[in-house]
Amino acid sequence: MVLEKINQENDIKKIPKEELPVLAQEIRSFLIEKLSVTGGHLASNLGVIELTMALHLTFTLPEDKIVWDVGHQSYTHKILTGRREGFDSLRKLGGLSGFPKREESECDVFDTGHSSTSISAALGIARARDLMHEDYHVAAVIGDGSFTGGMVYEALNNASQLKTNFIIVLNDNGMSISENVGGLSSYLSSIRTNEAYTSLKKATEDALRHSGGGEAVIRRIRGMKNNLKSILLPGSFFEQLGIKYFGPIDGYNLERMVTVFQNAQKVEGPVVVHVLTKKGKGYSPAERMPARFHGTGPFEIETGLPAKKKEKADWSDIFSTVMCKEGKKTPNLCAVTAAMPDGTGLKRFRGMYPDRFFDVGIAEAHAVTFCAGLAVGGMIPVFAVYSSFLQRGFDQIVHDVCLQNLHVIFAIDRAGLVGADGETHQGIFDLSYLTMIPNMTVMAPKNKWELADMLKWAVRRAPGPAAIRYPRGRAYDGLEDFRAPIRLGKWEILYDESDICLLAAGSMVETALQVRAMLKMEGANCTLVNCRFIKPLDEKVLREAAQSHLLIVTLEENVISGGFGSQVLSSLNAMGETVPVECVALPDAYIEAGSVDLLKQETALDAESIYKRIRTRMIGLYV
Amino acid sequence: MVLEKINQENDIKKIPKEELPVLAQEIRSFLIEKLSVTGGHLASNLGVIELTMALHLTFTLPEDKIVWDVGHQSYTHKILTGRREGFDSLRKLGGLSGFPKREESECDVFDTGHSSTSISAALGIARARDLMHEDYHVAAVIGDGSFTGGMVYEALNNASQLKTNFIIVLNDNGMSISENVGGLSSYLSSIRTNEAYTSLKKATEDALRHSGGGEAVIRRIRGMKNNLKSILLPGSFFEQLGIKYFGPIDGYNLERMVTVFQNAQKVEGPVVVHVLTKKGKGYSPAERMPARFHGTGPFEIETGLPAKKKEKADWSDIFSTVMCKEGKKTPNLCAVTAAMPDGTGLKRFRGMYPDRFFDVGIAEAHAVTFCAGLAVGGMIPVFAVYSSFLQRGFDQIVHDVCLQNLHVIFAIDRAGLVGADGETHQGIFDLSYLTMIPNMTVMAPKNKWELADMLKWAVRRAPGPAAIRYPRGRAYDGLEDFRAPIRLGKWEILYDESDICLLAAGSMVETALQVRAMLKMEGANCTLVNCRFIKPLDEKVLREAAQSHLLIVTLEENVISGGFGSQVLSSLNAMGETVPVECVALPDAYIEAGSVDLLKQETALDAESIYKRIRTRMIGLYV
Repeated sequence: MVLEKINQENDIKKIPKEELPVLAQEIRSFLIEKLSVTGGHLASNLGVIELTMALHLTFTLPEDKIVWDVGHQSYTHKILTGRREGFDSLRKLGGLSGFPKREESECDVFDTGHSSTSISAALGIARARDLMHEDYHVAAVIGDGSFTGGMVYEALNNASQLKTNFIIVLNDNGMSISENVGGLSSYLSSIRTNEAYTSLKKATEDALRHSGGGEAVIRRIRGMKNNLKSILLPGSFFEQLGIKYFGPIDGYNLERMVTVFQNAQKVEGPVVVHVLTKKGKGYSPAERMPARFHGTGPFEIETGLPAKKKEKADWSDIFSTVMCKEGKKTPNLCAVTAAMPDGTGLKRFRGMYPDRFFDVGIAEAHAVTFCAGLAVGGMIPVFAVYSSFLQRGFDQIVHDVCLQNLHVIFAIDRAGLVGADGETHQGIFDLSYLTMIPNMTVMAPKNKWELADMLKWAVRRAPGPAAIRYPRGRAYDGLEDFRAPIRLGKWEILYDESDICLLAAGSMVETALQVRAMLKMEGANCTLVNCRFIKPLDEKVLREAAQSHLLIVTLEENVISGGFGSQVLSSLNAMGETVPVECVALPDAYIEAGSVDLLKQETALDAESIYKRIRTRMIGLYV
Repeated sequence: MVLEKINQENDIKKIPKEELPVLAQEIRSFLIEKLSVTGGHLASNLGVIELTMALHLTFTLPEDKIVWDVGHQSYTHKILTGRREGFDSLRKLGGLSGFPKREESECDVFDTGHSSTSISAALGIARARDLMHEDYHVAAVIGDGSFTGGMVYEALNNASQLKTNFIIVLNDNGMSISENVGGLSSYLSSIRTNEAYTSLKKATEDALRHSGGGEAVIRRIRGMKNNLKSILLPGSFFEQLGIKYFGPIDGYNLERMVTVFQNAQKVEGPVVVHVLTKKGKGYSPAERMPARFHGTGPFEIETGLPAKKKEKADWSDIFSTVMCKEGKKTPNLCAVTAAMPDGTGLKRFRGMYPDRFFDVGIAEAHAVTFCAGLAVGGMIPVFAVYSSFLQRGFDQIVHDVCLQNLHVIFAIDRAGLVGADGETHQGIFDLSYLTMIPNMTVMAPKNKWELADMLKWAVRRAPGPAAIRYPRGRAYDGLEDFRAPIRLGKWEILYDESDICLLAAGSMVETALQVRAMLKMEGANCTLVNCRFIKPLDEKVLREAAQSHLLIVTLEENVISGGFGSQVLSSLNAMGETVPVECVALPDAYIEAGSVDLLKQETALDAESIYKRIRTRMIGLYV
C-alpha cells in the first residue's frame, strides 16, 4: 500500500511520481470503505482527491496555509496530514471532525463549516503574513456552489484592492450541494464548455493569419491586444474585478495542476485557478447521485443503497408533505431555499409548483429580503432553511422582514443538536436570536402533527413574521391524542397537576414526558405544558403555573443565554412572580460532533440527567 | 414657484417640459434651505434630483414600485409624492422619516436603511407581480457604494436565473459614503472614463472601415458580432451574470434618462441602467466635501460650515485618539472599517498607519471573517462598526471569530439610541445578539476614559473576541475620579450603600447617577455599580448585591429581550438568589426617529421615569 507511506504532512512529496495515481486510487477506496461504515461527506471528497494531492505536492505544510471553504471536502487533506487512523471515529464524539479544526492539527489553519468564508479568511491571513514580514503561501479552496454566496464578492472586491499574493482555487464541479443556480453558474459553465471562447479566439487568430495585405488591420488588432487580453480570456469576470485567472484545468491531471499551482505561487496579487472536478468521481453510485452522497449515512458499497432503511418520517418529510398540500389550497404560497431543495424537503414542492419555488443559491441574506419582497407583492413566502445557516440572514430578518412586520414564514430545520456535523451546524442559537427581534413569532412543535398544524397556522393566520423550528431526523409521533388548535401565543397543557411544572419547548416535550414518568414513579405530582409559542409566551398559563407549583422547570434545546428559559425568567420577573425556576438548556458553549443522544448526555439534556436535577432541587426546596 | 404645483404623486407629469429644469433648481434650493435648519442627508439627495424626476416622469405611482436602496436619497421622491410640507419636521419624533416608510406613503413600497437590499426586494416584488398576474413596473435604485455589499451579487445571480422584468438603476456617483473601494469600483470607474471601451470600439470600427480587400476579415469579425457584443459593451460584467445593461447615461440629462427608462421598461428580463451622478450636485460646499455632507447637522448655507461648533469630543473621537496611540505601541494592531473611515473615527489611523488600515467597502460579513484571518495570521484586528450594521456579520462572529476564540476586537459605535436616523439605525440589539455567543466578551464604558481603558485592555489583554459598545455623540466626561483598572468580568462599584442597587451598563451609568441623586434627595440609600462587563457578568458583586439590597435595578440602552437585565436575571436564578429585580431597558419594539432625549422619555429610559418606577416599586416592597 502506497497509502501506508503517508504518515504525516509532506510525506506525499517522497512518493515516486509513478506511484501517485496508485495513491489516489487507494485514497478513493479508503474513503469509500470507511464512509460506507461511518457515513460522511462522500461525493465532494471523492471529487477532490487529486486536487488535494496536487496542493500538498506544491505547498509545504504547516508553514503554507490552505483554507478549505465549507470544509467538508477536507478528508484527503486529513489523510495526507497523518490523520488516516482517525477515520474509524469520523464525526463521532471525541473523534475526527468532518471539518477542518485548528485544535485537531497544525495543518488545519481555519475552522470552516458554513459556505463562502474562505477567500475572506485567506485574504486576512495573507495580509497578516505581509505585515509580519513572513514568507509563506496561502490558498483558499472554494467550490463553485460557494460562489453563489455574497461574501465571495465582498472578498474578491477587497482582494483586488489589496493586491496581496494568494491563490483562490475554484473547485468547479458544476453544482453545489444540489444543482447550481443563477447567472454566475451559467457563466462558469460557459467557460467549461468553452465554445464562445474557443470560437472567438480562433476567429481572431484566423483573422490575423488571413488578413494578407491588410497591414493596418494587423496593427490595429495587435494594438487592441491589451484590451482584448482581459476581455477575451474566459476569466474576464474575475479580471474585471482585478483578479488574475488561470484555467480551466482538468482536476484529474496531477502534473498539470502542480505546474499551474507552482506558477500561481509566483503571480503578484490574487489569482484564481479554475479546476474542473466531478462530485463522486470514481464511485459510480456517487457520480450518478451526488446529492444523495453529499452527506450520507452508512451504505452498501456495491449498490450504494443506505445500510439501514428509513423507517419513520423525518421532520423534513412532514414539512414537505404539508407544503405540497398547502400549495394547492393557498395559491399565493411560495417556497424559497438557499441551495437545499433536498435537505429541506422542498423537492416535491418544486416538482408540483415550479413557478412558486425558488432556489436562490447559497445566499441566505438575499433569500430573506427576497421573501420580504415577495410578501410586499402579495405572496406568502416560506423560507425553509437550516437553523445555523439562517444566522446568515439575521440582519435581513431584523431589518427587512420584522421591521415591516411582513408575513414571511421561516421553516427552520435542523434546530437543536444535529449530531455528526458538529459545532458549525448545531442549531442551538435560533431561539435566542429570533426571540429578541420585535414583531417575530417563534414556535416549536412537540410532534409531527403539530408541525403540520403550525405550518398551516403560520400560512393562514400568522399576523406577521413567523418562525417554526424543528429538529433534524425522525419526527416524534407520540402524544397523538393531544392536538388542541393552534392559537397565537397559547400553550397546550398536556398534564395538569401540581408541585412540579415542566415547561417544555418543541423537541423537549418528548424528553419531558420521560422525565415526568420518572418523577411519577416516585409519586411526585407533575404538570407538563407544551410551550408551543416561545414568542409570545403564554403569560396566562405561565402566571397560573407560577402560582400553583413549587418549582417550574423550563426545557429547551438551545443555548441558555437569551433562550426560552431566559424569556420565562424575564416574564415571571415582570409579573412579580417569585417561584423557583430551573432552566434546562444547553451551556454557553459550542457543542462538538457526536450522536445526538450522546451529546444530550454530555450536556445533561437527557431525561435521566434532568430527572436527577429536578429531584435534587425538590429536595432542596423541602429542606 | 413650479414646486408649488407638485402636491401629490404624478403631478410632475403635468409640468410643461420647459419648466422641468426650473423645478429641479427649486427642489435643489428647497433641500439646501430646509436641511440647513434640520440637518439630514444632503449630498446624496442633491445628486439624484434629476434622476428621481426622470423616474417619476416614467413611472406611475403608487402602481409602479420604486425601491430605494439605503433610502437616505429619497427626499426628492418624498417631495414629488406630496410630502414637501413634512420637511420642517424631517427626522424628528413623529415627523417625516429620513428613509422610505410604508407607513408614511403608499408610494414608499419598501422600508430601507441598510445597504444593498434593494435588488433582492425588487426582485421579490417583481416575481410576486408575475405570479399574481398583475402588470406594473418595478425598479431598484442603488448606488455604486451599495455594490460592494455581497447581497447585490446574490440578488443579481438570482435575477438572471428568474428572468423577471425589472429595472436596476445604478446610481453611480463614484463613491459611497466615503470613497469607494475595491475591484468593482475600478471597473465602474473604467466605464465612466470609458477610454478602454471607446478606443476598442473605435479600433474595431476603423479596422472594418479600412480593411479594404480583406473581405475574409470583415466576414469573420462580423461573425464574431454576437460574442463581441457582450464582451465589448462596458456592461459586460453584468452581461456575464446574465443581466442586460444600458449606459452610462448623464444623470443630469432628464430627457435622455426618460427615454432610456422607457426603453428599459420594454426589456424582457432584468436590466441595469447605469446613471452617472455627482454627490452634492449644485451646492459647492457639498460637491467639495461630500462625506461631510453625507449626513449633516444644521449648517450655514453660504459657507457650508456647521451652525453649531462641536464643543466636546464624541465617543468616536476618543476611539480615534486611542487607536492612533495604541497603533504606535502595538505594531500588530490593525483597523478595519466597512466604508466608514470618517464616521467611525478611523481616518487618522489610516493616515498614520496606511498599511494596517483596511476599508473593505460596505461588506460587514467579509469584514468580520477578514478580521478572523488577520488574527490567525498574528495581527490584532479592531473592526470599528456601527451597532446596527454589525448585524450583517452575525453569523461570521458566531462561526469564524468566536468558534475559534480568535482575538478580534469589535469597536461598536452608535450603540443604543441614535436619534434622527430612526428604526434601521438604532443600535439596540447588540447586547442581545452578542451575549448569546459563546467565548465573546462584551463591554460598555461609562465615560470617555473608560472607553480608552477598555480599548487598551481589549488590545493587550483580552483572552479572545471582545466587543466594546458605545453611543453616538458626545462622550460622557463625568465620574473622572473613578478609574479602577479593567479586569476581565469585574464590575466597578461607584457608590456602595444599601437598600437599592443600581446596576448600570455603559451609557446608563450617567443616567443612573441622576436617578441616584433623585433617590438620595428623598433620603433613600442607593448603591451604584458600573457594570463594565455585560459578558461575563461579575457574579461575585452580583451575589453580594443581591444579598445586601432590597431591590436590584438593571439599566441598559438595549431591548429587554436577551439583554443585560435578562442576563442578570438568569445569573441570579442560577445562584438561587430571589431578590426583586426591576429591568429598565428598551421595549420589545422598533424605535422611530427623534432626538435621543425625547426617545428616552418616550421609552421611559430617562432619569425621571426610572426614578418614578423605582419609587413605585420600593413603596410596593414596603407595603
